[in-house]
Amino acid sequence: MALMAPSLRVRRTPFSDGVEAAGVTAYTVYNRMLLPAVFCDPVKDYHHLKRAVQIWDVACERQVEVRGPDAARLMQMLTPRDLRCTQPGQCYYVPIVDGTGGMLNDPVAVKLAEDRWWISLADSDFLLWVKGLAQGGHLDVRVKEPDVSPLALQGSLADDLAARVFGDRVRDLRFFRFGYFPFQGRDLVVARSGYSKQGGFEIYVEDSALGMPLWNALTEAGRDLDARAGCPSMIERIEGGLLSYGNDMTMANTPYECGLGRFCDPLAAVGCVGRAALLQVAGEGPVKQIRPIAIDSQALPPCDRAWPLMAAGQRVGQVTSAAQSPDFGHGVAIGMVQMTHWDPGTHLQVKTQDSTFDAEVQKQFWNA
Amino acid sequence: MALMAPSLRVRRTPFSDGVEAAGVTAYTVYNRMLLPAVFCDPVKDYHHLKRAVQIWDVACERQVEVRGPDAARLMQMLTPRDLRCTQPGQCYYVPIVDGTGGMLNDPVAVKLAEDRWWISLADSDFLLWVKGLAQGGHLDVRVKEPDVSPLALQGSLADDLAARVFGDRVRDLRFFRFGYFPFQGRDLVVARSGYSKQGGFEIYVEDSALGMPLWNALTEAGRDLDARAGCPSMIERIEGGLLSYGNDMTMANTPYECGLGRFCDPLAAVGCVGRAALLQVAGEGPVKQIRPIAIDSQALPPCDRAWPLMAAGQRVGQVTSAAQSPDFGHGVAIGMVQMTHWDPGTHLQVKTQDSTFDAEVQKQFWNA
Repeated sequence: MALMAPSLRVRRTPFSDGVEAAGVTAYTVYNRMLLPAVFCDPVKDYHHLKRAVQIWDVACERQVEVRGPDAARLMQMLTPRDLRCTQPGQCYYVPIVDGTGGMLNDPVAVKLAEDRWWISLADSDFLLWVKGLAQGGHLDVRVKEPDVSPLALQGSLADDLAARVFGDRVRDLRFFRFGYFPFQGRDLVVARSGYSKQGGFEIYVEDSALGMPLWNALTEAGRDLDARAGCPSMIERIEGGLLSYGNDMTMANTPYECGLGRFCDPLAAVGCVGRAALLQVAGEGPVKQIRPIAIDSQALPPCDRAWPLMAAGQRVGQVTSAAQSPDFGHGVAIGMVQMTHWDPGTHLQVKTQDSTFDAEVQKQFWNA
Repeated sequence: MALMAPSLRVRRTPFSDGVEAAGVTAYTVYNRMLLPAVFCDPVKDYHHLKRAVQIWDVACERQVEVRGPDAARLMQMLTPRDLRCTQPGQCYYVPIVDGTGGMLNDPVAVKLAEDRWWISLADSDFLLWVKGLAQGGHLDVRVKEPDVSPLALQGSLADDLAARVFGDRVRDLRFFRFGYFPFQGRDLVVARSGYSKQGGFEIYVEDSALGMPLWNALTEAGRDLDARAGCPSMIERIEGGLLSYGNDMTMANTPYECGLGRFCDPLAAVGCVGRAALLQVAGEGPVKQIRPIAIDSQALPPCDRAWPLMAAGQRVGQVTSAAQSPDFGHGVAIGMVQMTHWDPGTHLQVKTQDSTFDAEVQKQFWNA
């Protein structure tokens, strides 16, 4: 692996001092910001996540704040999910599409009030799309990136750690609900959510100056829980079927291809800019779709390019995320597969940059 | 320095195989794509650039193609530069602003035809802004990222190397003009431009499959010119006053603050979405502006965060790019300075993460 050259353009986060003190060894860049990728090593980090609790610097989940009289209208323009019955205090996973139905992001939308939302982003400068739509359509709304940086607690002991800092009331939060919890005299949005299947919380730290005090408070409170700095685990999130925008889907894919049809109701989502395109796709159905792929491997190279999925010498899809699973003893992967070969049990070959492996389409993800 | 974790989401380029074979040691991420940052070491790379010629993988300068009946109208919406008298065959540096006059990008626009442009991007997902404006305003235009990856030849021997591959006619190209030059049966856009002050070309490689053949042809042809794989040199570009979007300017800055007023004519740029905001700013003048800053240093830490510029204990600006210059024997930097302290000769202090240095506002950049 090459080194990562530092620059102001690749932004540090309010938690970077803590991440460095905890001994981060590799980063990736996400929304032009540092995202830790490895502390000990990917396998040790993975086992620890499943066993204890980790504190994740996910400040790179930048927020887009949409606020004003036209906020609801603009939000519905963005997504084919029907937002009419949404409630303040809830989080919503919202596929976002352009005019052709192509995926632009798959954020979690946090409804703070009827006229105020935070959109917690996957990896694209989505602020520009929302600003462009608002500008082009002359909407009465303010669109900005607020000073809000998520910090996640993930792992089986996340409730215990959160309760020590925010009180036992935090245990009562239901999945994808949020509440306001006090920290150093401020009320922070804390949601039961996060990019793992181990459970936990995302804390929306509003004001960068609170970043290190909160990091330190959590680290201190979690000492006897073996709480450690961690980061999203590629192995664990593939086992759990958590998609990654930019890896598993891009602007070239519809939500239906990504298996996100259950979040789409284009008939009801009047105003969504991709509505006409998606109504057509919804009728026809996708001709390729995301599938879990088991790989018959002992070890895998890094999946830093799309790996062709082959059947009888023909390309029938591609793997977009892959890792060797310690718990399942084989390679786990996410791939986009043509309908001719997407049935569970279909045998394929996957061509990596190093060699070719046998692979099989699965019925469901391993930790779904 | 930490390592850079590989993933599909941080895209490889059509030249990555060549870059790796040439021994890249550090990357940065630019437009969600790998951009080499170091080969030998930053100082050796810098001396070599000034003395010979380098082949740069700048595929991360992604293109936005704007094509169709409303292309001219959309282009003028984007920028306060007056585009009425622009000509096909020319490149134009165009500050891009939002509705408040804030900088969204500072690309080079390549006018291919009256109804067809490529916008060669600095570091932001500008495609989303252009698509959003076109969608919101119902413009008759197609906006997409084409399969075009720039490869740069930079250095004093760039003309010699380019002529060996594209013929002597390439020597006649004037600055910021482009022509079509044959390579393996295809006509490629070759422009006299690039992100250094050493001179050279940018080749717009249309079709990723041509990437490695061109890389190899240039490497082979340049063997006795000491042509090597290289990359933009932070030291050299600061000496030359070349700004970096995301470092030296952001959405929070107007073009006037960035010293780009000479590219702005908001009175003439009818249709520019930031026109009203910039007309006001143009009248009042900026209250802070980019300046060259000399630092009295023997060595500097990496400028991975904004460094406050202080005078009499007050913050009067910030340094956004900095490096120790081997040729000038002191630190060279780009900073945004308040008008009270922006006069050449003004003495300041700059606070890095490690220590404080004396600094002085300069009249002009060192290689301007």
